[in-house]
Amino acid sequence: MKKITAAVVGATGYTGQALLRILEGHKNIEKIIAVSSSKNGEKIQAFDNGFWGSTKCDNIYHSVKEAFFEKPDVVFAALPHLKSAEICEPFFENSVVIDLSADFRIKDENLFFQAYGQKPPRPDLLEKAVFGLCEIYREDIKSADLIANPGCYPTCTTLPLFPIVKALEIEPTVVVNALSGVSGAGRKAVDNLLFCSRSENCGAYSAGKMHRHMQEIEKELKTVKSDIDIYFTPHLVPLKQGMEVTTFVTLKKEISNDEIAEIFNKAYSNEPFIRLLDNQFPQTAFVRNSNRVDISWQVFGNKLILFSVQDNLVKGASGQAVQNMNIRFGFEETEGLRVFGDL
Amino acid sequence: MKKITAAVVGATGYTGQALLRILEGHKNIEKIIAVSSSKNGEKIQAFDNGFWGSTKCDNIYHSVKEAFFEKPDVVFAALPHLKSAEICEPFFENSVVIDLSADFRIKDENLFFQAYGQKPPRPDLLEKAVFGLCEIYREDIKSADLIANPGCYPTCTTLPLFPIVKALEIEPTVVVNALSGVSGAGRKAVDNLLFCSRSENCGAYSAGKMHRHMQEIEKELKTVKSDIDIYFTPHLVPLKQGMEVTTFVTLKKEISNDEIAEIFNKAYSNEPFIRLLDNQFPQTAFVRNSNRVDISWQVFGNKLILFSVQDNLVKGASGQAVQNMNIRFGFEETEGLRVFGDL
Amino acid sequence: MKKITAAVVGATGYTGQALLRILEGHKNIEKIIAVSSSKNGEKIQAFDNGFWGSTKCDNIYHSVKEAFFEKPDVVFAALPHLKSAEICEPFFENSVVIDLSADFRIKDENLFFQAYGQKPPRPDLLEKAVFGLCEIYREDIKSADLIANPGCYPTCTTLPLFPIVKALEIEPTVVVNALSGVSGAGRKAVDNLLFCSRSENCGAYSAGKMHRHMQEIEKELKTVKSDIDIYFTPHLVPLKQGMEVTTFVTLKKEISNDEIAEIFNKAYSNEPFIRLLDNQFPQTAFVRNSNRVDISWQVFGNKLILFSVQDNLVKGASGQAVQNMNIRFGFEETEGLRVFGDL
Amino acid sequence: MKKITAAVVGATGYTGQALLRILEGHKNIEKIIAVSSSKNGEKIQAFDNGFWGSTKCDNIYHSVKEAFFEKPDVVFAALPHLKSAEICEPFFENSVVIDLSADFRIKDENLFFQAYGQKPPRPDLLEKAVFGLCEIYREDIKSADLIANPGCYPTCTTLPLFPIVKALEIEPTVVVNALSGVSGAGRKAVDNLLFCSRSENCGAYSAGKMHRHMQEIEKELKTVKSDIDIYFTPHLVPLKQGMEVTTFVTLKKEISNDEIAEIFNKAYSNEPFIRLLDNQFPQTAFVRNSNRVDISWQVFGNKLILFSVQDNLVKGASGQAVQNMNIRFGFEETEGLRVFGDL
Repeated sequence: MKKITAAVVGATGYTGQALLRILEGHKNIEKIIAVSSSKNGEKIQAFDNGFWGSTKCDNIYHSVKEAFFEKPDVVFAALPHLKSAEICEPFFENSVVIDLSADFRIKDENLFFQAYGQKPPRPDLLEKAVFGLCEIYREDIKSADLIANPGCYPTCTTLPLFPIVKALEIEPTVVVNALSGVSGAGRKAVDNLLFCSRSENCGAYSAGKMHRHMQEIEKELKTVKSDIDIYFTPHLVPLKQGMEVTTFVTLKKEISNDEIAEIFNKAYSNEPFIRLLDNQFPQTAFVRNSNRVDISWQVFGNKLILFSVQDNLVKGASGQAVQNMNIRFGFEETEGLRVFGDL
Repeated sequence: MKKITAAVVGATGYTGQALLRILEGHKNIEKIIAVSSSKNGEKIQAFDNGFWGSTKCDNIYHSVKEAFFEKPDVVFAALPHLKSAEICEPFFENSVVIDLSADFRIKDENLFFQAYGQKPPRPDLLEKAVFGLCEIYREDIKSADLIANPGCYPTCTTLPLFPIVKALEIEPTVVVNALSGVSGAGRKAVDNLLFCSRSENCGAYSAGKMHRHMQEIEKELKTVKSDIDIYFTPHLVPLKQGMEVTTFVTLKKEISNDEIAEIFNKAYSNEPFIRLLDNQFPQTAFVRNSNRVDISWQVFGNKLILFSVQDNLVKGASGQAVQNMNIRFGFEETEGLRVFGDL
Repeated sequence: MKKITAAVVGATGYTGQALLRILEGHKNIEKIIAVSSSKNGEKIQAFDNGFWGSTKCDNIYHSVKEAFFEKPDVVFAALPHLKSAEICEPFFENSVVIDLSADFRIKDENLFFQAYGQKPPRPDLLEKAVFGLCEIYREDIKSADLIANPGCYPTCTTLPLFPIVKALEIEPTVVVNALSGVSGAGRKAVDNLLFCSRSENCGAYSAGKMHRHMQEIEKELKTVKSDIDIYFTPHLVPLKQGMEVTTFVTLKKEISNDEIAEIFNKAYSNEPFIRLLDNQFPQTAFVRNSNRVDISWQVFGNKLILFSVQDNLVKGASGQAVQNMNIRFGFEETEGLRVFGDL
Repeated sequence: MKKITAAVVGATGYTGQALLRILEGHKNIEKIIAVSSSKNGEKIQAFDNGFWGSTKCDNIYHSVKEAFFEKPDVVFAALPHLKSAEICEPFFENSVVIDLSADFRIKDENLFFQAYGQKPPRPDLLEKAVFGLCEIYREDIKSADLIANPGCYPTCTTLPLFPIVKALEIEPTVVVNALSGVSGAGRKAVDNLLFCSRSENCGAYSAGKMHRHMQEIEKELKTVKSDIDIYFTPHLVPLKQGMEVTTFVTLKKEISNDEIAEIFNKAYSNEPFIRLLDNQFPQTAFVRNSNRVDISWQVFGNKLILFSVQDNLVKGASGQAVQNMNIRFGFEETEGLRVFGDL
């Protein structure tokens, strides 16, 4: 069996922590190097206290340089947007880099600027980068050396919407409302993310065209329908992990539930990580700790409402990153990942 | 000072419990009679353990008959839909009845049938009933003897939408997404409402045209715009109390944020229980345990997104019921109710 | 009716926020001055977003100096330990100061040093200070100009234990286990208090003799039994507000449940904020947002287990501070405070 | 590789659901038969919605009879106390039965009666039954055909206490305080377990000698110290999964932290599922979804406080049941189980 070495750069954030756990249970991973510039040299257990008993990882946070000398086959970059490309510089030549930040997700420089207020940090690498939405770009991923792992909102929004936009004529305006657990904001010690701030609390933020995942979502859908005009309103809800997306589409003509079912079945019936729910609303607990997206829909005349859920840290981040690795290295696509959710 | 006697029929449910607490602190209430058919004769403390030390209520759940003989000035019916009208029968003649169920909210019998699958239980009383959405029907409430207290979703959806629909030309299709805390489902011992079912879980339910509050919302807005076509998708989120509504409206022409502000200021700037938030998204914690609705908005060309939050048990139910009583009996409108939320 | 002016110094912390809310609803308070050095000049609503519509407070955080010139009758100091005495300096002469920090709680300088690692900041004022555990020191509080409001753990532990230690002969070793909601740690943006750190998580900390509230608890009980030896283990649990204390006492001889009931009845049956629960375990939700402590007990031969709950921000902090004010100024002791808990 | 067939009887409860998930990922399990009398013939997905994509289980709840004809090598009985022995009757002859109820945990009939109010249901099988506390009875488990899987409280309490009681002279009275997540009460649709009842709520129950796990704990410790006298107070806290135990022991003489460390190291340093934490308090999140128990301690003269955490559904129930299977069938002891906790 082929076994490889993986580095996780940014191992102290939530997505980095999730990666350590998934890779520990992955049979094709021989060695894990946990990298953290802020905790370099410290024991993993001192900060990430539940991660004990690893047989693949030496319980120390390492520097990028140390990781480089280990010649990792794959590098997972679980780093902040706009910093990731620079920190990963040493790895681009000899390792497959799977970047969980936004640095390589948007190839159009103007669009990137709209979203992040500056130019893409490494325009020279953009052509090489493949957008790692596995169910859509699987073929390209197989040979990619730089994979831009999608954001959590784009994954959960694009997967249900893509086949619909491809198969049907729709009005340009699409209304998306999303609910996200608190881990989606990252591990940051700020007042707004305190237990006492988020417990028994929810609300919208960065609505309409304001969220910087908007461009990432729209550019994907525009590959199929160039005039699509998405309004995306995220809401923070008191979950640790989990994401739900409700998408409202107006079709040019009426359609039946069965016709929608057929479109989804054609697109996804063989996908290991997508479940189509018939006449039932998905809940985030169904997919907790799994790499799955559950999709369902309701039709009202020419109005179509789509529902999708995922675990934002798994299919929305670290799980999909490992799925990308599996595709890229020819491992079994489900290896190390769960198709079923926690109870 | 004028002092009255109040009966709370259905005092063991969440809205009944909330009413006991609000009325206990209300200076115009002299006596409270807690009524429960299922717990008749039992001590309140045995079931509603925190409600201790009342000086207005005798710590026993009474029967409807016992309450009747006390000749209550006002009766709050915190009972299930389709049962309320019947149980309240003895009180219609001599008491002001404020009904928190849906039994008198919809005057059109066909519309009621669409929502509740049967005819309104007391069609003869419908003409007399006033819809108790205080900010809109205040004048009618002043002389009403039967007040149909609005549902939580209709309150939180109608208040921001009503002045917009009144002031502006809009496209018929309006997309509403709502988040509700678990108490909105009532105090029912069912698997789906267990702590282990709802903790770390959220999802949509009864989407589009399926929720039975739909008709209540649409009929209000249709008084202003007859062809309005609302799609309403509620979501259950892991809050005990709280509700957030995000409403997407397409205007016939572009508008500025300031023009929207003007509309809302004109409608609500003197309202004690409505706060207009300028360029900030409301969160449910802002209004926890208060009778307030916080409203804000964002404009994107001709697209308008409205945001509103309330405590579903207060302004969404028991608080508004007391506000209705205050209006009806000529008490200070804010008496017994909080304008500020918990920390 | 006598009306006074109150200043809340440290109005941005959880106890400061709770004080603003309680004082707003207190009929003897005419004016509230919110003081914050870090937010001086900013709008209250920008940081404490639910506190809207105050008629007593001008919606601006003020400086200590500004508050001083308003000549407040009472000053609530909701400040960090070891900083409070210094910041309150201007008020000691002309205002009644109710200090929610530990600065004046322990008169023995060595004991204070054991707990806080330095000398008491104002030893000259210690004699004047009265320990504001209302049910025990009510008489002293009536004439006190400096009141040291007790800590949350000391309040919830001392109230059930004090009458027992006074009435019965017990073995010196007393084992206390306490559960506290997260707000007990204060409003601090640190990793350990994030939603994702505390949700679905609990554990002990500062056990045995390590917590700095230990000395405060022991010195109170030592006034009655000099050789008492308390082992106190607090646990952080995923509540926003709430505290439960379980206390294990070994008696010198066997006793009956009824004899214990008699002791508690004698001590507390007239207390407005103490409820004695007969043969039932108190839960924190019973007292949420009330100023009440619920106490119950179980006897096993010569072993006695005491149970007590309170809202850590109300009876454990801001509510008791207002109760102290009520006693000191001759207001009705329950004014502004709730005896019943939320539903 | 040896592969076996497993039946899970009572597959709709929380421990049954957890078993399905663990067994699905266990490489020595070839086939899983989910058994439920109440849901017999229904689809698993209709009730246990996240359990999708199983390759070992046919997505239907079966009857006991159907399971019997499949000749399962191992039967996990995840059934209520006092019903399990009877329902499992068909399996005792040909299958290894791992019973998660209390029916075979206590061999002394009087003691069983004290705890459960009736005689053990199958006294004839008691001799054959082995108490499945793996770290203590591993040798006996290797050849057992009937394994009584310990309760969650007994596991988390006995593991830290057992080596101490064995190695040191202690006073008889031991004070145990435990915190449990809500899933510990089982999947039951009752008012007290609703989200709105348990959210923002905690409290003690069945204190001292009242909990029926008391006898199970004491009889284990009495094998080492016959006069031990344990007082056990459980508390319900708002976690879905997780358990913390704080144990207070008085030693006959003073001891150092290092000496305690030595005792624990000797007992557990080779155990794959026990972590000894040096000078740090364990938190339930450290072990979430793992089969691990984390243990730590603090010494104050002759007073010793022990701290232990586990996931009540894993090491406290289903995980330990699988660990027992691994030991009994000669599989790798950690197969299918996680040593590290979720992030």
